[in-house]
Amino acid sequence: MNIAVLGTGSVGQALAVKLHELGHQVYMGTRNVRNSLQKTGKDTWGNKLIGDWIRDHPNIKLVTFQEAVKESGDLLVFAMNGHAAFESLDAVGKDLLHDKILIDISNPLDFSQGFPPSLFVSNTDSLGEQIQKAYPALKVVKTLNTMSNPVMVNPGIVEGDHTVFVSGNDQEAKSRVSEWLISLGWKENHILDLGDITTARGTEMILPLWLRIYHNLKSPYFNFHINVSTKAG
Amino acid sequence: MNIAVLGTGSVGQALAVKLHELGHQVYMGTRNVRNSLQKTGKDTWGNKLIGDWIRDHPNIKLVTFQEAVKESGDLLVFAMNGHAAFESLDAVGKDLLHDKILIDISNPLDFSQGFPPSLFVSNTDSLGEQIQKAYPALKVVKTLNTMSNPVMVNPGIVEGDHTVFVSGNDQEAKSRVSEWLISLGWKENHILDLGDITTARGTEMILPLWLRIYHNLKSPYFNFHINVSTKAG
Repeated sequence: MNIAVLGTGSVGQALAVKLHELGHQVYMGTRNVRNSLQKTGKDTWGNKLIGDWIRDHPNIKLVTFQEAVKESGDLLVFAMNGHAAFESLDAVGKDLLHDKILIDISNPLDFSQGFPPSLFVSNTDSLGEQIQKAYPALKVVKTLNTMSNPVMVNPGIVEGDHTVFVSGNDQEAKSRVSEWLISLGWKENHILDLGDITTARGTEMILPLWLRIYHNLKSPYFNFHINVSTKAG
Repeated sequence: MNIAVLGTGSVGQALAVKLHELGHQVYMGTRNVRNSLQKTGKDTWGNKLIGDWIRDHPNIKLVTFQEAVKESGDLLVFAMNGHAAFESLDAVGKDLLHDKILIDISNPLDFSQGFPPSLFVSNTDSLGEQIQKAYPALKVVKTLNTMSNPVMVNPGIVEGDHTVFVSGNDQEAKSRVSEWLISLGWKENHILDLGDITTARGTEMILPLWLRIYHNLKSPYFNFHINVSTKAG
């Protein structure tokens, strides 16, 4: 099917490659196609910038946010820094977003004070909730935001049991996203539906811990697992 | 050895029982002994209140915060609600706290808006850091705050691998606390030293996720595990 990936950074790139491998036509959305094509070289993490990357991936279509959503089926993947959420969605407009499912894998990271970043929304609110509130007819499903992009698209890279969380108000949308996660390689019993979109506070707020563990391990190849005793329920 | 447990609620009770079983003399600290002895019946979770509980546990000594610290060796366990931290430590005084190790298992939970609670400090600060800053000569080690009290004192209740985090500025104090955790039943390879006390932000901030999982499972018998790929490092 046709699927929109909003965002051209390393997370968007990893998801675009995986979704293309799975047989989907990926429409990668960006603010300004011409500007994106001029971004060449690598970022500070060694990932190719979109201008070079897209030339290596001619099967991925680089288009505007609005075109990406127009061309896609019901699934949109939001794979940008959290602070870009409203700018990019506003560029699409409410009419086109109506009844779409937004797979929100972003985090509200604030790098303004350096590393480690803090969160620009947390505790009594979350970015997932803010997006849902701003676009009531969009079905926001927060997921995949608690791990590195290699783990997102290749969960088997971490051996054994580990968890992907799902938060959202619409049960049918969460079922669709769970099927999509399974298509990426996630095991059904590793998908943990936390409840409505307010539970995104919990998953966004574990980013500070994720960042400290990443800093200690110097590796992105790990994930959280919720180990439940057989004594439970 | 003699060990102080500051706090008389279910977490303090669970730790006091375990530490007594391990052969320690436990001094349980409270604001006012006479008032504590008058608290009878059960709390909303079905746990005995301290007045009844202490009569069932004659080997545990119920004393003031200050007496508990006076009688203890170098280890103090802070097992109260986070908002009581400064009141109780101020009652002890800086002189007695000098060079002691405070095992801080509290969380800055704010129940003023009901369930689920939010945090009264988070994101750019933590309760662990605030205590360390207020008492520079106290060696604060944050640990055990990411799980229920049955799991704290009996980690084997959750089968398989799961993690206990440690945060603190003093490496020797963290080594002492790690030995103490091992004495409670924790496996050495399940103890994850995150770094200095600022990493307590990470562990305190996973409480909202913990609370949602608890709400879904309706069981306290689970824990977080950090599953690291063999590809890491």
